[in-house]
Amino acid sequence: MSSTKATRDPKDAVVLLSGGLDSATTLAWARGEGYRCHALSFDYGQRHRFELESARAVAKALGAAEHRIVHIDLSAAGGFGRSALTDDIAVPKDRPAADSNIPVTYVPARNTIFLSLALGYAETLGAFDLFLGVNAVDYSGYPDCRPVFVKAFENLANLATAAAVEGRGAFQIHAPLIDMTKGQIIRIGLGLGVDYGLTHSCYDPTEDGLACGRCDACRLRLAGFQDADAIDPARYAS
Amino acid sequence: MSSTKATRDPKDAVVLLSGGLDSATTLAWARGEGYRCHALSFDYGQRHRFELESARAVAKALGAAEHRIVHIDLSAAGGFGRSALTDDIAVPKDRPAADSNIPVTYVPARNTIFLSLALGYAETLGAFDLFLGVNAVDYSGYPDCRPVFVKAFENLANLATAAAVEGRGAFQIHAPLIDMTKGQIIRIGLGLGVDYGLTHSCYDPTEDGLACGRCDACRLRLAGFQDADAIDPARYAS
Repeated sequence: MSSTKATRDPKDAVVLLSGGLDSATTLAWARGEGYRCHALSFDYGQRHRFELESARAVAKALGAAEHRIVHIDLSAAGGFGRSALTDDIAVPKDRPAADSNIPVTYVPARNTIFLSLALGYAETLGAFDLFLGVNAVDYSGYPDCRPVFVKAFENLANLATAAAVEGRGAFQIHAPLIDMTKGQIIRIGLGLGVDYGLTHSCYDPTEDGLACGRCDACRLRLAGFQDADAIDPARYAS
Repeated sequence: MSSTKATRDPKDAVVLLSGGLDSATTLAWARGEGYRCHALSFDYGQRHRFELESARAVAKALGAAEHRIVHIDLSAAGGFGRSALTDDIAVPKDRPAADSNIPVTYVPARNTIFLSLALGYAETLGAFDLFLGVNAVDYSGYPDCRPVFVKAFENLANLATAAAVEGRGAFQIHAPLIDMTKGQIIRIGLGLGVDYGLTHSCYDPTEDGLACGRCDACRLRLAGFQDADAIDPARYAS
């Protein structure tokens, strides 16, 4: 009997891609696991909309099969919460790392909204794997970045959808970075070939897309590169 | 000691309002319970967009404090599932009541998406009560109309949000009609003063907004009015 090599079609996955460091690493991770990746980004009124350009570049560089940008206005004008990310509120700078309060950059129910749209997109594709770059170690203290939230959403997904209820599969929400430090994430991403020069983290960039270096996102990023003994290729204003 | 009457500010609630019979009844119910109601509708690419006009009229007639319409494209063009409600697929007519399959009018993850946006809106308002007109008796067989789904979303909401995690309150998802027959819903709504002539149920109306009388939504509605011994004030094409 001659040996035959089984060639399996890659499984489809939906990857939430903000254009930041964590979601780029997550996309690289999912690609590394062999998934055919459908990247999903949101134009939700964020002041750092510059990140959508990064999302496009990252999706292309990391070989996403598809990249979609969904428009949904989560700003105060759209009826949603006044957040420093979407409205005319100053982005906090130089916030002490010990400050464990949920900051004003919090957008009400953001990850619930993003995951629910990702779920609808996945069900449309016949995909059961969703990847999300949340991280509960070096993060900004958002409740919807915690393992307990991810697990609760997975439970919901398997009750909410025809695909799951009719037994075609079970949804899995993958959050591969959730227990890693920023330094670990960067080391892993560099190993997977992520070009962090394409990613954008700053909440409050200049019009030219230069990072401020002082918001929570910049500070976590800079500390992460230092921790990883690597050079941050992002361009900073100062 | 003179008796003093405590005057309490009404509690705010978010009510999902499609403009149909069930959601109108739910709004009347929430108003009857004393809530200050913020009605939320979705322009999601539905072919029966006519229902949004009904939602406006119903919100006004039932004294909603506010009515918002959020735009989110859930059609195939928007990257989401091909559904008979959003795309060029025939709406099933005269479907046998015994057919328990999930019909092609199913929109992937629709109630998860709508509730997640309602959650963000509620958190913005400082509200903890969400009302949803789902019904698990006389319904179309959608998985996201079942009590187990509603409970799972409530659990998620209390893990996902700053308002819950910081202890300002606990979210409750109210689905007062979930165990009622369509006839019971109509009887209760008539008792609460709902003008069902303002509501719209048909999935496939004529351009003038006349109901087809033969889709699942029309058939359930017509049977419900018969069951309630009431006259359906909707205008039908035939």
